[in-house]
This record gives sequence, structure tokens and C-alpha cells, in this order.
Amino acid sequence: MSVTAAQGFIAAGHIAGIKASGRPDLAVVRNVGPDQHAAAVFTSNRVQAAPVQWSRKVCDGRLAGVVLNSGGANACTGAPGYSDAEKMARLTAQEWSVEATEVAVCSTGLIGERLPMPLLEAGIPQVCSVADRDGGEAAADAILTTDTVRKLAVHRGDGWTLGGMAKGAGMLAPGLATMLVVITTDAVTSPEDLQQALTAATEVTLNRVDSDGCMSTNDTVLLLASGASGVEVSLPELTGALTAVCHDLGQQLLADAEGAQHDIAVEVVGAASEADAVEVGRAVTASNLFKCAIFGKDPNWGRVLSAVGTTHAQFDPDQLDVSFNGVVVCRAGGIGEDRSLVDLSERKVHVRIDLHAGAETATVWTNDLTYDYVKENAEYST
Amino acid sequence: MSVTAAQGFIAAGHIAGIKASGRPDLAVVRNVGPDQHAAAVFTSNRVQAAPVQWSRKVCDGRLAGVVLNSGGANACTGAPGYSDAEKMARLTAQEWSVEATEVAVCSTGLIGERLPMPLLEAGIPQVCSVADRDGGEAAADAILTTDTVRKLAVHRGDGWTLGGMAKGAGMLAPGLATMLVVITTDAVTSPEDLQQALTAATEVTLNRVDSDGCMSTNDTVLLLASGASGVEVSLPELTGALTAVCHDLGQQLLADAEGAQHDIAVEVVGAASEADAVEVGRAVTASNLFKCAIFGKDPNWGRVLSAVGTTHAQFDPDQLDVSFNGVVVCRAGGIGEDRSLVDLSERKVHVRIDLHAGAETATVWTNDLTYDYVKENAEYST
Repeated sequence: MSVTAAQGFIAAGHIAGIKASGRPDLAVVRNVGPDQHAAAVFTSNRVQAAPVQWSRKVCDGRLAGVVLNSGGANACTGAPGYSDAEKMARLTAQEWSVEATEVAVCSTGLIGERLPMPLLEAGIPQVCSVADRDGGEAAADAILTTDTVRKLAVHRGDGWTLGGMAKGAGMLAPGLATMLVVITTDAVTSPEDLQQALTAATEVTLNRVDSDGCMSTNDTVLLLASGASGVEVSLPELTGALTAVCHDLGQQLLADAEGAQHDIAVEVVGAASEADAVEVGRAVTASNLFKCAIFGKDPNWGRVLSAVGTTHAQFDPDQLDVSFNGVVVCRAGGIGEDRSLVDLSERKVHVRIDLHAGAETATVWTNDLTYDYVKENAEYST
Repeated sequence: MSVTAAQGFIAAGHIAGIKASGRPDLAVVRNVGPDQHAAAVFTSNRVQAAPVQWSRKVCDGRLAGVVLNSGGANACTGAPGYSDAEKMARLTAQEWSVEATEVAVCSTGLIGERLPMPLLEAGIPQVCSVADRDGGEAAADAILTTDTVRKLAVHRGDGWTLGGMAKGAGMLAPGLATMLVVITTDAVTSPEDLQQALTAATEVTLNRVDSDGCMSTNDTVLLLASGASGVEVSLPELTGALTAVCHDLGQQLLADAEGAQHDIAVEVVGAASEADAVEVGRAVTASNLFKCAIFGKDPNWGRVLSAVGTTHAQFDPDQLDVSFNGVVVCRAGGIGEDRSLVDLSERKVHVRIDLHAGAETATVWTNDLTYDYVKENAEYST
């Protein structure tokens, strides 16, 4: 399933030996057509890993596929690192008898170390040789880092399919490349529609999974379309399906943040604009104090208001309402229902902030801040 | 010493019973003149506690003094909370035979709970009655929350004195009012010079102690001048002394962040503008991943570059240098000296980032992110 759920795609995962653990660390996803349309979104970090620089250059609406590795981010590795990324594309292209510029590259792992290229030179021909229609799950396994489970999602349309895989351990491992996502479809569509749908879908899903406010150097979301179903799909239909799959994958990222004990949805309503709602949501989900409070099962609405107060959104401090799991603990900027009525024992937490300034809304998702988050990120590279 | 080091000031601390712990929780600092000049800076959070709203209104260049309590922030308490703050000023003013509008109010503690006014009604006359020239340390003790030590600083000029007290447990307790500071001087100066010097001094000191990126609803820095020394002090001299005292107090806040194991100075050099340098410094000190790495004694320069990359500062990613305690682990955006050469066993950590884009510099200070930070902030209000 996953990236091979749609017709026209083959994939594989492989143990190249990049990870000291001996777990799978190399994957390919190949689009065998008839179309080879592609779209992509990348991290907006100005410090971009070599594979992001390469993929950004070559992804111009058409790709034969992508080669991905875990065990090393190939970020902040300078010109030699860029040559390594290019070489990964070239080695893959040779196996597929295409140009290197038709192959995107994704890497994930520690920043600031060169990739072990001899292992990739040996591994890429091997992983390409075993790629097949059943390889989606093996590919999804090979891109994991501190993730504990593979992340897959599939949407079945009327005669067409959209499927994807993701890696990213939520708030746990974002020092490496937080998020890699590859989505495939056999829908018949144009590169322009693909890009428009992908941008719209990621904007309201993956881009609002704000696990710990640390923007990665490697984030990449690729969408490949083979047209193999022969079914033409409209832009709204494609966007809807993509949004559902991206939302599904994003929620899986949150759920696998091992250090986290809560998945938190911060819903902002009554905003004067969607941008206001997003700004407020991001301010709250970025607050360590708020995230520690949720870890402590404490509906600390004061910390929510403190965070809201740092934004430029339209609101009157005396009109803010905040609820935790349905209990309005803050009403009109002051004390509301008894906070002891709030039950935060479940993993899912819903915080709702009403700005009373308009009709726009947005939801931003995050996790709580826990001992294990600190532990994983204090020990990760040592 | 502290706020009573300068001539013309009396102070006191008192146990009013606001804190369940039975520790001191009420203080006054009174300016007995001959001048009663004053200046202030407040939190820029748009959600402002009632005492901040009150003090901002009444601090117009002249104050008879200030009443301060710990054990409750009186924030997000609506119109009743504002009346409580006003009442604290009025009760104090009655004791001093001045107008309520000559008395500033500062509160610190949990957000979203009313103050126990009967205790303040009983306590304010008592604390006023015992204020004297030796009361500076008692006042400094009474404003502490999760702080473990009082914070005092004194600067001796040529015939004049500047002294201050602060509360704020660095990154540990910022869900309450992170920082309250009262500084007094017996210098002869104008309210205009006072305000100008205070704004300049706090901008490069307390405003750059970015403990955990969470902006308080209660932050207040008050400067009171009695003129009792009879010595006129120039604006540059006043600014210099204030900057030294504010820096000293700020470093004491960092050092008392109990959950923290490292005090981190992030120095940004080679910036095109001071604003760029500050933006880069704040981005790095706000990164949980960076702060966890320091806790783990890991000179993880990749996390520094990731944070720098999120800013709008002028720089070329391929020219960034980063050193940890003098070891240039990242050179020209790539791998530099061996990271194992870096020793992060001491509490003080110095990270230096060279943007190679100009001649401006700035330093922002923070602490590491530790288990105990999470513990304190998960358990604080429960």
C-alpha cells in the first residue's frame, strides 16, 4: 500500500548500512507512468540541506522518482555534500535509464555529517533492482529515524487512488529532518493542478503540525502522478483527497511522538482573518509553558492568554474565551468554569480559543513537552 | 542594601499570608525625596495584568513608591482584579498620606486567580509601618516566587548610588510574572533622563535575557529617583550605571534558574544590523532543540544553523561560522573543528555566531532545557 497503492508506481526499502543500528535506511519510489508529473513543497528554512537544494532545482513538474535515505541529513555539508546528493540522483538515474535531473533526493538524520557514499554506491543499484508493486511498506520503513511505527495513508477515489508515506517523529526528532512525505497518485492531472493541490493541502495540514517550533533543514513533501488509472480528476477533488491524506499522515506524526503524552489541537475561532487564527494557534502551540502544563494535566488557561497576548491578531483581551476539552475555564478574559472540571487524562486534548473578532478559524496541532522530549533531544547525537 | 542603598528610600518585606508556604509575600519601596521622579518599562504582552494596567496609568514621571506582592499575579482577573490593584495602591497611599495615583503596584504569582484582599488590607498598613533604611533585603525576599535566592545589585557613583532588586526564576517560573525589578537612585536627574536611561539599559540587558521565549503578563521594571545625594548625574553616566545594574540582575536571574544546568550566552557578530543580530540571537535561544543539546553537553551546531535559517537576517548560509566555548565547530556553513574538542561541563556556555554580513553584534542569554524545567512547569499550579 502507501506509495504503491496507486497504479504506475514501484518502490523498495533496503539496508545499506548507513544506520549503525542495521535497520533499513535506503528507499526508492519510481513512477513508471505513463505520466511522470510531479509537485513538491520544501522547508522554508534558509539553511537547506543538499538534497533539498538538489530536489528544488530538478523538480520542475516532472520526475521519474525519488531516492531517500535515513541515517544522515546531508545538511550543512557544503559543496561536497551537494555533490553527494547529486551523485545519489545520478546512481539512481543510471539504474532507471533516465537523466539525474529526473530524480529527486531526500535525506534525514543528523545535520553536519557527510553521508557514507561507498555504502550508497553499493546500495542504490540493489534497492533499485528489488523495487516492485509491493514495496510501499518497505520504503516507508526505510525512511524512519526515531519513529516507532511506519506512517501510511491511502485515499480511494472513483477509479483512482492516492497513497502516501511519511516519516517524522513529531516533536521528538526534529533536529534531524522533521518530516519527509512522498505521495503518489494514478490520477490523470496536470503538473499545475498537482502543485496547486499540494500547496493548498499541506498549508492546512502538515504545515500546521507545529510539533516544537523548530523548522527543519530537510522537510520535503513530494507528490508524483502516473496517470495510470486513466481517470481524470478535477482540482477540487484532488485537493480534497490530498488534504485528507496529508491530515491523516500529520496526525500519525503527532501520535508517534514517543516522548509526548498528549496530542493537542489548538482551535482558534472568531478570528478576524485566517492569518490571525493561525498566528494565535502557532503562538500557543509554541509556548513551552503551555506544553508543560498539558503534560502536567493542568488546564492552565493563563498560559494560553499569555501566548495569545504576544500576537498581533485582532482581539480585545477582555473578550477572550478559552476552553479545555469543552470546559470554558476562561470567559471574557477572566475566570470561567472551575478548572477542576477539566479532564486531561486522555491523549487527545482540544483547546478552543474564541477571539470574538470575526468569523475565521484555524487549527494548529502540537504535542506536550515532557521529560522524554528533553531526554531524546539531549542524547540524540551523542 | 539593594533598593535602600541609595539615600532617600525606605523599604520593608512582610508575611501577609498570601503564600500558602508562609514565606514573605508583601513589600513596599518608598521614595522619601526630596525628588520623587520615576520611570518604568512594562511587558509588551497585550494581555496585561491588572497591576501593570494600573502602574502604566499612574507612572507619569513621578511616584511616591511601589507596593509589591508575590503569591498571585492578579492577571486575567477582569474589572474586579483591576479594583484590587487600585485598592492596593489606595491602602498604601493612605499610610503615606499621598494620592493613590502616586503608588505603583506589582504582583507576581499564578495567573487567573483573585488576590486574597482581606490579607492585603491587613498587611499593607503593617508593611508600611515597618519600612526603614535597612529594609531593602526584606523587600527583595518578599517578591520571590520559585526563586531560591534574593537578587540584589548596587552601583556606587561619585557621591551617588544606584541599587536594585529583582525577582524571576529565569526559565523556571515564567508562567507567573517572570520578572519584577525595582531600582532606586539618589542621583539628581530629570524624569525624562530617567526614562531614556532605563529604556536604553533594559533594551540591551533584561530584554535580552530570553529565558524561555514566554512573555509575561506582569513584567515590570521601575526606576525611582530621590535626588537625596544632591549629585547631578549626566545621562550617559546614568545609562552606564543602569546598564551595569540591569546586566548584573539579569545574570542573577539566569543563575537562579533552578531547573537549568547551563547559562548560555549567544553572541552574534558580523551582523548587518543590531536588529539582525538580536533576531538571530533570539531565534537560537528560543530553539528547544538547541537548549536540549546544551543540557546534553552536545555542541550541536546543526541545531544552531537550523535556527539561524528561520530568520530574516542578512547572511549567506555558506559563510556561517559557529563556535562553542571557542571551538569553531562550524566553518563556512559546514563541518569545522572536531566537536569532541568542546567542553560543556561548566555552567557558563558561550556560543558565537559569525554571520559575515557586517560589523554589528548583540548577545542574547538563555538557559538550557532540562527535566527539571519540565517538572517545575508541569507541576507549578497544581
